[in-house]
Amino acid sequence: MASIAQPKRQAEVLEAAVTVFHRDGYDAASVQSIADELGILRGSLYHYIEAKEDLLFANLLRAHRDVEAILAEVRRLDATPLERLYAYTRRQVEYTTSTYPTMAVYHRDADKLSADRRRVLAARWRRHERFVVDCIEAAQARGEADPSIPAPALARALVGSLIGVSRWYRPDGRLGPAEVARQCADFALAGLRGRP
Amino acid sequence: MASIAQPKRQAEVLEAAVTVFHRDGYDAASVQSIADELGILRGSLYHYIEAKEDLLFANLLRAHRDVEAILAEVRRLDATPLERLYAYTRRQVEYTTSTYPTMAVYHRDADKLSADRRRVLAARWRRHERFVVDCIEAAQARGEADPSIPAPALARALVGSLIGVSRWYRPDGRLGPAEVARQCADFALAGLRGRP
Repeated sequence: MASIAQPKRQAEVLEAAVTVFHRDGYDAASVQSIADELGILRGSLYHYIEAKEDLLFANLLRAHRDVEAILAEVRRLDATPLERLYAYTRRQVEYTTSTYPTMAVYHRDADKLSADRRRVLAARWRRHERFVVDCIEAAQARGEADPSIPAPALARALVGSLIGVSRWYRPDGRLGPAEVARQCADFALAGLRGRP
Repeated sequence: MASIAQPKRQAEVLEAAVTVFHRDGYDAASVQSIADELGILRGSLYHYIEAKEDLLFANLLRAHRDVEAILAEVRRLDATPLERLYAYTRRQVEYTTSTYPTMAVYHRDADKLSADRRRVLAARWRRHERFVVDCIEAAQARGEADPSIPAPALARALVGSLIGVSRWYRPDGRLGPAEVARQCADFALAGLRGRP
C-alpha cells in the first residue's frame, strides 16, 4: 500500500475494501467488487496492490495504529490506574462503533492472513494486552481491583467484553457510540473492582 | 445426520469434523481430512452426509442443545436471579472449555452456513439471550443488578465476556476449566452488580 501516493485516496481504498469484506465476507469478496465500490477499473486498483490480502492487512494494521494512539493518549492522562482503564474501555468501544465494520472484519477475518502477517498483528496485540494487564496490576496494588483474580485473566475478560461489541453493534441501532461505550465501560469497571 | 444409525459413531464423526475444522479452518478443511481423522474411507463418510456443511451445522446445533440443557438446569435451581446468572456463567464457561474447540469453531465459522441454517441457529441464540435478559431484569427488580444499564446491554456485555473465552482458551494452558469458569463468573457478576 506504500505506493498509494495520496493519503485521501488510500483512506478511500481501505474504506471501500472493508465495506466489501464485511458485506460479502472476505473469501467471497473480489478485487472487482472493491473497484466497483470505488467506481474505478479493477486494473487501476492493481496499480496499488498486489493481492486482495494487502487490503485486509492494511486495514487491520491501521486499526492497530489507531488503537495504539488511544493507548498513548490514555497513558498521558493524569489519572489512577482504574480511571485509565475506564478511559481506555470507553475510547476503545467508541472506536469500534465509530469505525464499524472494521473491527467486525478484524475479529472474523484476521486468521485469513498469511502466517507472517498474522505474526505482525499478534505482536501488536501482545503490546496492547500488556498495557491492559499493567493497568490492572497497578489497580490491584492500590486495592482498587479484585485481587482474587490474576490480572491476565481480568484483562482477557475485559477485552472479551469489548470485542463482543463488534459482534452485535449495528450503526442503525437505537444506541449511539457514546452510550454503548458508557454501558460497556460501567459493566467492565464494576467487573474489575469485584465484590465490594 | 439423521441417517447415522449408531449414536457412538455419530459423536465420533462430529468430534473428528470439529477437530479438522479447527485445525485447518472450515474453508480449507476437506471431507477427505475428516475421513482420515476417523480412519475411514471418504466414500464411507458420504454414506452419512451430503456435504461438509452438514457436519458444521450438526456440530453447532449440538452445541445449542447442550447449552439449552444447561439453561434448563439453571432454571430449576432454587436460587435468586443473580445466583442463577452466576451458575449460568460458570457452567457456560465450563462447557466452552471442556468441549474446546467446538465454540471456537462456532464463533469463527457459523457465518459460513447457508442462510436457512443460520436462521435456525439465530432463533436458538435469541431464546438463549432471552433467558439471560429475563434473569438480569429480575435481578434489577430486586435491586441486585445495576439499574442504570438496560438489561439487554448488560446481557450483551456478559455474553461477550463468555464468548471471549473461546478465543484465548487453550486446553494445554495452566488453568483448568473450573478455575477459568470461576474467574469469568466473578468478573461478570461484579459487572452485573455494578457500583456499590
